[in-house]
Amino acid sequence: MAALGLTWVRIGEFAWGRLEPTPGDLHFGWLDEAIAVLGAAGLRVVLGTPTATPPRWMLTRHPDMLAVDDQGRLRGFGSRRHYCFSHAGYLEECRRITTLLAQRYGANPHVAAWQTDNEYGCHDTVISYSEAARAAFRGWLRMAYPGNGNDGDIGALNAAWGNVFWSMDYADFDEIDLPNLTVTEPNPAHVLAFRRFSSDQVVAFNRAQVDIIRQHSAAPVSHNYMGRVTDFDHFDLGADLDIATWDSYPLGFLEDRVGATPEQQRHFARQGDPDFQAFHHDLYRAVGAAQGAHGAGRGRWWVMEQQPGPVNWAPHNPAPLPGMVRLWTWEAFAHGAEAVCYFRWRQAPFAQEQMHTGMLRPDGAEAQAFHEAAMVAAELADAPDVAQRQARVGLIFDYGAEWMWQIQPHGAGLCYFDLVLQHYRALRRLGLSVDILPPSVRDFAGYGLVLAPGLMVVPDDLKAALSASGAQVLIGPRTAARDGEFRMPVPLPPAWNGLDVTVSRLQSLRADMPVPLAGGGAVTGWLEELEGGAEVVLRTASGDAVAMRAGKVTYMGGWGDGEALRLLLSELCALAGIAVQELPEGVRIRDTGTERFWFNHNPHPVDTPVGALPVAGVLRVPV
Amino acid sequence: MAALGLTWVRIGEFAWGRLEPTPGDLHFGWLDEAIAVLGAAGLRVVLGTPTATPPRWMLTRHPDMLAVDDQGRLRGFGSRRHYCFSHAGYLEECRRITTLLAQRYGANPHVAAWQTDNEYGCHDTVISYSEAARAAFRGWLRMAYPGNGNDGDIGALNAAWGNVFWSMDYADFDEIDLPNLTVTEPNPAHVLAFRRFSSDQVVAFNRAQVDIIRQHSAAPVSHNYMGRVTDFDHFDLGADLDIATWDSYPLGFLEDRVGATPEQQRHFARQGDPDFQAFHHDLYRAVGAAQGAHGAGRGRWWVMEQQPGPVNWAPHNPAPLPGMVRLWTWEAFAHGAEAVCYFRWRQAPFAQEQMHTGMLRPDGAEAQAFHEAAMVAAELADAPDVAQRQARVGLIFDYGAEWMWQIQPHGAGLCYFDLVLQHYRALRRLGLSVDILPPSVRDFAGYGLVLAPGLMVVPDDLKAALSASGAQVLIGPRTAARDGEFRMPVPLPPAWNGLDVTVSRLQSLRADMPVPLAGGGAVTGWLEELEGGAEVVLRTASGDAVAMRAGKVTYMGGWGDGEALRLLLSELCALAGIAVQELPEGVRIRDTGTERFWFNHNPHPVDTPVGALPVAGVLRVPV
Amino acid sequence: MAALGLTWVRIGEFAWGRLEPTPGDLHFGWLDEAIAVLGAAGLRVVLGTPTATPPRWMLTRHPDMLAVDDQGRLRGFGSRRHYCFSHAGYLEECRRITTLLAQRYGANPHVAAWQTDNEYGCHDTVISYSEAARAAFRGWLRMAYPGNGNDGDIGALNAAWGNVFWSMDYADFDEIDLPNLTVTEPNPAHVLAFRRFSSDQVVAFNRAQVDIIRQHSAAPVSHNYMGRVTDFDHFDLGADLDIATWDSYPLGFLEDRVGATPEQQRHFARQGDPDFQAFHHDLYRAVGAAQGAHGAGRGRWWVMEQQPGPVNWAPHNPAPLPGMVRLWTWEAFAHGAEAVCYFRWRQAPFAQEQMHTGMLRPDGAEAQAFHEAAMVAAELADAPDVAQRQARVGLIFDYGAEWMWQIQPHGAGLCYFDLVLQHYRALRRLGLSVDILPPSVRDFAGYGLVLAPGLMVVPDDLKAALSASGAQVLIGPRTAARDGEFRMPVPLPPAWNGLDVTVSRLQSLRADMPVPLAGGGAVTGWLEELEGGAEVVLRTASGDAVAMRAGKVTYMGGWGDGEALRLLLSELCALAGIAVQELPEGVRIRDTGTERFWFNHNPHPVDTPVGALPVAGVLRVPV
Repeated sequence: MAALGLTWVRIGEFAWGRLEPTPGDLHFGWLDEAIAVLGAAGLRVVLGTPTATPPRWMLTRHPDMLAVDDQGRLRGFGSRRHYCFSHAGYLEECRRITTLLAQRYGANPHVAAWQTDNEYGCHDTVISYSEAARAAFRGWLRMAYPGNGNDGDIGALNAAWGNVFWSMDYADFDEIDLPNLTVTEPNPAHVLAFRRFSSDQVVAFNRAQVDIIRQHSAAPVSHNYMGRVTDFDHFDLGADLDIATWDSYPLGFLEDRVGATPEQQRHFARQGDPDFQAFHHDLYRAVGAAQGAHGAGRGRWWVMEQQPGPVNWAPHNPAPLPGMVRLWTWEAFAHGAEAVCYFRWRQAPFAQEQMHTGMLRPDGAEAQAFHEAAMVAAELADAPDVAQRQARVGLIFDYGAEWMWQIQPHGAGLCYFDLVLQHYRALRRLGLSVDILPPSVRDFAGYGLVLAPGLMVVPDDLKAALSASGAQVLIGPRTAARDGEFRMPVPLPPAWNGLDVTVSRLQSLRADMPVPLAGGGAVTGWLEELEGGAEVVLRTASGDAVAMRAGKVTYMGGWGDGEALRLLLSELCALAGIAVQELPEGVRIRDTGTERFWFNHNPHPVDTPVGALPVAGVLRVPV
Repeated sequence: MAALGLTWVRIGEFAWGRLEPTPGDLHFGWLDEAIAVLGAAGLRVVLGTPTATPPRWMLTRHPDMLAVDDQGRLRGFGSRRHYCFSHAGYLEECRRITTLLAQRYGANPHVAAWQTDNEYGCHDTVISYSEAARAAFRGWLRMAYPGNGNDGDIGALNAAWGNVFWSMDYADFDEIDLPNLTVTEPNPAHVLAFRRFSSDQVVAFNRAQVDIIRQHSAAPVSHNYMGRVTDFDHFDLGADLDIATWDSYPLGFLEDRVGATPEQQRHFARQGDPDFQAFHHDLYRAVGAAQGAHGAGRGRWWVMEQQPGPVNWAPHNPAPLPGMVRLWTWEAFAHGAEAVCYFRWRQAPFAQEQMHTGMLRPDGAEAQAFHEAAMVAAELADAPDVAQRQARVGLIFDYGAEWMWQIQPHGAGLCYFDLVLQHYRALRRLGLSVDILPPSVRDFAGYGLVLAPGLMVVPDDLKAALSASGAQVLIGPRTAARDGEFRMPVPLPPAWNGLDVTVSRLQSLRADMPVPLAGGGAVTGWLEELEGGAEVVLRTASGDAVAMRAGKVTYMGGWGDGEALRLLLSELCALAGIAVQELPEGVRIRDTGTERFWFNHNPHPVDTPVGALPVAGVLRVPV
Repeated sequence: MAALGLTWVRIGEFAWGRLEPTPGDLHFGWLDEAIAVLGAAGLRVVLGTPTATPPRWMLTRHPDMLAVDDQGRLRGFGSRRHYCFSHAGYLEECRRITTLLAQRYGANPHVAAWQTDNEYGCHDTVISYSEAARAAFRGWLRMAYPGNGNDGDIGALNAAWGNVFWSMDYADFDEIDLPNLTVTEPNPAHVLAFRRFSSDQVVAFNRAQVDIIRQHSAAPVSHNYMGRVTDFDHFDLGADLDIATWDSYPLGFLEDRVGATPEQQRHFARQGDPDFQAFHHDLYRAVGAAQGAHGAGRGRWWVMEQQPGPVNWAPHNPAPLPGMVRLWTWEAFAHGAEAVCYFRWRQAPFAQEQMHTGMLRPDGAEAQAFHEAAMVAAELADAPDVAQRQARVGLIFDYGAEWMWQIQPHGAGLCYFDLVLQHYRALRRLGLSVDILPPSVRDFAGYGLVLAPGLMVVPDDLKAALSASGAQVLIGPRTAARDGEFRMPVPLPPAWNGLDVTVSRLQSLRADMPVPLAGGGAVTGWLEELEGGAEVVLRTASGDAVAMRAGKVTYMGGWGDGEALRLLLSELCALAGIAVQELPEGVRIRDTGTERFWFNHNPHPVDTPVGALPVAGVLRVPV
């Protein structure tokens, strides 16, 4: 590892069974030795708490610790992540093992960082319909709707949720069940509360470990997130941590969660989507920032698991084109990664991930990623460091909005994540670098353009901050469409000071019914009817207002397709004085403090203004 | 409301939680006031019993009142219709609240009609696999197969069902379970009995309320049905009522249950299917007739909920074209509706239906339906009343046949409702008005043509009545194919006196394998082989008999496509002396006693023999 | 029956309810009489044990006898096969009824063969997640990983399965659950053990009956298998029996399990797939052979149920073209069937199979199969017997490999059965007759070409036997890819002595991404990267090795399409000195000891070198 040029090694994250084969029978010797060996070789260790894989005896001790799915089925032992975040007994066990690890290795000089658990939320594990979750949810609601004393104000909850509708009023918090298996759809306010609760449970679970580690260690604490897992609020969780890391599997993601068309899946099958990883890099840079420091591009983040070759878990598992592992690595550094680690070192010849390639084959021979990582290590040694800088464009991403769209898509397949990703993609095709911003940001200094599409809840102070920011602001569709209790505000949305626009009605449309716009492009899937005195800046081909503007705030009352977004964002960039450069398909750029990086994601070479880009080509152009 | 021209207001149907917030704590004051206010304004009230939404405390009182789905999962509290029709305790609670309401408002002059519950069967709520249902089913079977004493004759049941097959004989009624979760398909006779039982439970549940209301009130009693809900026999239930009302959501239905092709869904996306609503108007006119009065077009029926704009519940929720709310309203009147009400008055900004538009927006501003309803109100005031008359064509619709086709479709996707709707559509494209007839009708006076496609069970007296009716009669495919116990009769079907036709064999075919007919059109999906001495009137292109005739009875041994039905029905109309007029796509007519109504369901204007029809155009032409 | 020319009649297989209507109340009289009547007419009886349909009282006696599906739902009474193979109480009941039957009829001269149960595995009934199965699985594992004493060696199991991964180690066999409802995928070694156990339970269940019958009867014992049921090892089960019989439903299978394209489903809708039945004939000929005698084409086998017309259970149920019942019958004889029986004699007008045609209609009239069976009977009387001979090509089929591919397909839709069937189909399109071989075969004398595609586990002695066989041997893709515990071997696969080929990496590909080969054809879905010094005999169009050869062993590192297999197999046949004859689509031949049979499966006549073949045509050409 050291000879190859690696500097970090993560270990221990699934090792509970080896650390404590039977309850209380602790075996730290092998881990002591492993850390010592790695440290002696000059490698720094990230030590994981092993709480993602409770051993079998844990289930005997806590038979009710399992999560329950939305169909009421126990989610059993035999793989991983088989615990409910609301189970107090398991939480206590996690505190115990974390304490033991932190006490033993907190001052170990080779343990240079910590990781809590692994991939919270992977395999749909945030949401549990267990008895433990139900009891905890009731307690959470009592706190969310406080009354006199400890019992909460059930009347406040009924009023907030609109439970008068369909005679759904509760007389007591103990009457409230989890919102699954209802006859028809449950109250969206009920579901939203449950989604917020579920997210908070993950945050609390994580915080318990962080608090313990910090008592014993000065090393930074991280968690390793997944791609497109949105069931808990990563900003909330990240606020307790020093570093955000994530797992970048470009080919698996393209098959499994990008939402690409079959044509795109074929074209990018061996390279991955050109924006999906970059979006997460930018997202986790924001998650990695301490609260309040968002927007300046200063968050600490890593790629903890970089795809090294074919994986085992996607519907199809092609091999990356030669050079793509290197390209992905450089792309991460260009977006500000502090480190890029590869998963895994050696392919395991047994168990669930036996088809997941590594840097070494099961027989120890070197595989694709080994050679490409070595090339990157050499290049890193020869080149200047990547200097980060704030982007000119900010794009707000809100986990809560994602939940609300999931609860009430209104049109089949409409999804907040896709809406934001499509805006991100359109910006990138214009050659722009983007900062993802949390919904808590209020300081927009430095941004020429800020986007908040689909941000269902916009507090008044955020509205005010955006209006006062000096940036061009693009909102809609569905921005500010609800209050925090999932109610439609009156006056009707967006109810934005200084912007005389009202969404008077809205409709969802079949995907095969695009509504053409007067200047090109179309609206698909979602179309609002707008009223008010603001200037109409975009119309349907038949003349209806689609976007309206007052000052620097533009409201877009529909879901624009790629061409519509290209036109609209180009205009907004012109107004903001931001230069754009339209890029060929599959080519992307990233601006750092001193350079412009060019990446070719196509399976063929491409000519660019700065020269030819070969397959898997990366160019660093000083600016 | 009154100023707009409304005359009826329905209230109370989901108000149990407000009427009785905790058990026995009754709050009628607000309802007294509401009725008084409405009445003082000159509005008439339809008062609903609130039994579709039992409050949360009801579940505490009756923990086993919930329905169970076919996978064995409880269908919980948190939306509506969370009760099993077989639960005796809940039935008693419904009697109690109905009695309280009937006593208090039975003589109220403003309460001019009653509604029991709401939308029985919506959200698949007729069929329940609960313990209560199982016990009730056993009791129902004991009555259906009576023996000496109270215990039923289990041998009679075994013989009727053919339980000797696969050793399925029962020794006692208490051994009989509900027909879900069997290893492979259950006995169709078993399922049919369960479907009939389930329907009867709804009828009995409803009758309990009707009996109470009639003791205290002279006002007519109605129930509000849904579109394409066929899990209970509406004719049976309607026999206890004075008025049938239903909920007409043309755009939601097109997305969700018409069975249209994607092309049709695009073409009619903002107008709705041109036949689906009309079919239900005609169906509920029959349901609204007292038993025995069917066929004369005299049933009392309303539209209780007319779609006013985009709704919340379909896969996509487009906005109606301007004028369509008016068109739908006039179409209902042309088919004989006594009243058309709009749902809802004001859009609720909270809870499940917050995206369901109303006549008013959440902020109280007037929406599309407000203006179009006002237009209709003015037109009604200016024009003569619509006079109904019996149609020349009768089409039998049987809920029991629908269940039998569902139990044994024999070919994927084959469905009785679709078969009947396609016959109805073909008749309408020929410019014909149609009466839907229940299977209990025996008097066909006035009809020149009667159709009974797919009517699986035809009692001998119905066969005789049809043969003697003097009308041209079209039967098949699958008409008279089974006896009442889901057995194939021997002699083989249709076994129709005077018609020497035998279905010697039948097959189902992939949808992409149409069998062309000699004279045009094709048979798709279902094809029978016919034997016998009757005249062959239709053949496949390769010469096999498809339809045969003796006297005025024609047997069609296949599922004809649109062109085949056009040709066959045109010929039958010619034989019957019924004039036809082929209509352009999307144009439909309806003949009343004094007028011919023309409706344009297309998104473009159309030329017709009586002049140009604009988008959403309605013409009344005196005849 | 006798007049028609039938010689065998099977009875009794679902008759438990009539034999023992209540526990212990035995009624053999009707069966005595039936056998006597049949025997007196000169018919021979196959008597079935009735254990596939336990009566309702059995469930009262053994409430926990039901199987449980993978979602945890009980699989209830009301159809058939409602038992868990692991339930000791039900097994004992089966021993009891089998003993009673064997004692009574074991010496009956008309009972000329026995059948145990019926269609093991039909309706997915092999695998059960019941408590009984869990307890039995633990016991099976204790035997599979024996320790000192009776408790098994849990450490050996942990090591073999690689349970160190994700902390899945067990401390005791009683901690091991069944591998369903885990959070994400279970350990493939865990699932494989469960699949093997499940298969063994069927074998043990069957053996219990066979042992009893053999104590009382000298008549041969058979079981009646289904088509494409692979959940238990038919070779293992067949080793206890004398005759293998199976149920050939060509039209139902084409709709339901062949895996044909829509185009193929249309083309062959009324004739059935041209290879699927033949494959099963050849497979069951191997299953019918005593262990050790495989490969010589000497196994005893029948068609117990030949489709006689439209059936009731497929998604669509078309009618066979005239002559196809005769063709199917002759095809079975050409492949060596001892008997072909038709199911059923008379169509039952009630219960689940009322739409399953028979030789007689429900009214007793003669149906298609009656006439075609009569024709075959006459032809059989007039013609020489069919003499079997060993084929020149052997194709290994392994149920265990099927399970392993199902557990780990790696690419969506990839399936071992399809891989083998596509090789079989390619061989047949070259005019070849094929012997299916079990994985236990070691003697390949007489074969010029042996294929073992996808055979995941290849023991060393099988590798050696193949290499030493003198035949051309085609292996890969994925042959020898795992050891018996589902681990990847090191050195990497195929690790074949004398063949310097290593699969260095592999990938799965979307079906719409075929990789063209240099000489024609393509690889689809699965592609391996090959290393080593063996000769490259096939390359991709871009030059990568796809197939490599040393001596007579060829390794194919991809899933070849039809054209690729045609080219590769043609070359191998040339090397082996096996003459091929490319056949038109839908035409197949079968070589026996003395004749070449020609069959036309097309819906149109075809010209062949031996003359015109009409629709449904069969030719016997002496050789």
